[in-house]
Amino acid sequence: MTTIETPAIGQPEIEQAAERLGDALRVTPVIDPRHDFFGRAASISCKLELLQHTGSFKPRGALNRALVEQIPEPGLIAASGGNHGLAVAWAARRLNVAAEIFVPEVSPATKVDALRELGATVHVTGALYADALLACRQRQTETGALDIHAYDHLDTIAGAGTIAREMHQQLGEIDTVLVALGGGGLAAGVAAWFATLNTKVITVEPERSRCFAAAHAAGEPVDVEVGGRAADSLGAPRIGLTNWQVLKAAGVEPVTVSDDAILYAQRRFWNDLKLVVEPGGAAAAAAIWGGAVTLSADERVAVIVCGANTDAASVR
Amino acid sequence: MTTIETPAIGQPEIEQAAERLGDALRVTPVIDPRHDFFGRAASISCKLELLQHTGSFKPRGALNRALVEQIPEPGLIAASGGNHGLAVAWAARRLNVAAEIFVPEVSPATKVDALRELGATVHVTGALYADALLACRQRQTETGALDIHAYDHLDTIAGAGTIAREMHQQLGEIDTVLVALGGGGLAAGVAAWFATLNTKVITVEPERSRCFAAAHAAGEPVDVEVGGRAADSLGAPRIGLTNWQVLKAAGVEPVTVSDDAILYAQRRFWNDLKLVVEPGGAAAAAAIWGGAVTLSADERVAVIVCGANTDAASVR
Repeated sequence: MTTIETPAIGQPEIEQAAERLGDALRVTPVIDPRHDFFGRAASISCKLELLQHTGSFKPRGALNRALVEQIPEPGLIAASGGNHGLAVAWAARRLNVAAEIFVPEVSPATKVDALRELGATVHVTGALYADALLACRQRQTETGALDIHAYDHLDTIAGAGTIAREMHQQLGEIDTVLVALGGGGLAAGVAAWFATLNTKVITVEPERSRCFAAAHAAGEPVDVEVGGRAADSLGAPRIGLTNWQVLKAAGVEPVTVSDDAILYAQRRFWNDLKLVVEPGGAAAAAAIWGGAVTLSADERVAVIVCGANTDAASVR
Repeated sequence: MTTIETPAIGQPEIEQAAERLGDALRVTPVIDPRHDFFGRAASISCKLELLQHTGSFKPRGALNRALVEQIPEPGLIAASGGNHGLAVAWAARRLNVAAEIFVPEVSPATKVDALRELGATVHVTGALYADALLACRQRQTETGALDIHAYDHLDTIAGAGTIAREMHQQLGEIDTVLVALGGGGLAAGVAAWFATLNTKVITVEPERSRCFAAAHAAGEPVDVEVGGRAADSLGAPRIGLTNWQVLKAAGVEPVTVSDDAILYAQRRFWNDLKLVVEPGGAAAAAAIWGGAVTLSADERVAVIVCGANTDAASVR
């Protein structure tokens, strides 16, 4: 009989990450939009992580990872047309090292521009993300730059977990946390923080990008097809192995939401709270309106709103 | 020799307003976007009041005013195509009474739609705001509805002042508060709260809509021409008399900012903090980047970001 060893990550590792990160990250605020927003009597607080540097939670993990490692002269390297690429470019600027980011040709000019504004060298290469990833790996073997994976690394998870520590400090006891899941790094960090507490962590995935729900059903990570409205940020074809182990050990349960529910959530955030939220950032809240989760009247709920990076015109 | 009697408004009246408002309003969060946002070492916290119901601070004053009065059967009435109209409509819905809002024909369809979604009866009438105001007054004499003035009333000021109380609780001691000034209701409320404390309140007006700066120079309220980028929310042709008295008694000093500085601030809020901020909402922060105020390195500064209601496309 083999046992999967649970990765060594919990509150101590997250505390260390928080100390390491110091004041480089923003303490993002929480807001309880009150019952007329979620249409429920229960207190539901939104953690506004979309106000983090670069508009998503990603800098927490990327910077923590980079701070742990000895960064070689060629700096950091990553393949990503999205939030992770921005976070790596931001971390590199913060640490005054170089960054090379590989993005596929489908990446919108605005994201490429944002990467360049952060000082990164951007390579627009290949039709699809897989092509950019290949080019990135080739280049990494040439230069020896530090490759920062988007989610499947303990230091990335520990960095992401600082959001849970912060939220816990801000809100006190929380009964239930709703967190979106793409590759699983953020969810694993949150689960690791709350694992020893009386807090239930529920992951929310789009129906069409459900790598954790599929792994949960299969008992192990499996490949899934990805698509739908939130695929740009939550569309990982397979959950990270480390993340899977952390989530499994913590007993985290997955739920899924439809693209319509995500769009509805984005519109509510814009119309009622004046926040531009990207599909992946709105997914966790979508589980409340869409009914994917059942909450009791006195449950203290925290919803992580984890990303802003979308065209403002798309949320109306 | 005549003395102007200082209106009876201070911390006790604002405490009463806060109690009266209960949990009807959102506790809007604060965020310190860190030194790379404002480009300064000093701690500068932004009070994100643009996340308030209806996207501005206006419901604080409108609801407090309505709660103090006996509301007649015809409900509330107001002339406004902007934030005040939304706030009155919101307050009426909250109190389950009727609201009639008069808006000029130039009002964008989105604002008219938003008013109707809040359940208000909307009268689109006349070419200009002055026409809508005239029609509103005529109607008020017919129906006897409660006319809620946009800024010049002690109960409105006290309601607006609850933002200062809340901010004070959130941030502790504050050396300097920057607040935008239109008709002066918000600024008067803030000044009334901090009048007895060691906190300096600075009002920020657009160069082209400077009713308090003009009054400050003249020693009394005077009419000014209004125009420029923030005229929709800050373009009052004359400061409210009550507001003037409160601001004068508190020794508040005005500064002004250019339209370019306001646009720059809006772009910074969008690009670096992912917040859609209307021109009037960005004016206070514009004073920092634009150099209208000089802050020392260790000064604890709070900036009120007081409104969101603009087309998202306009802030890029």
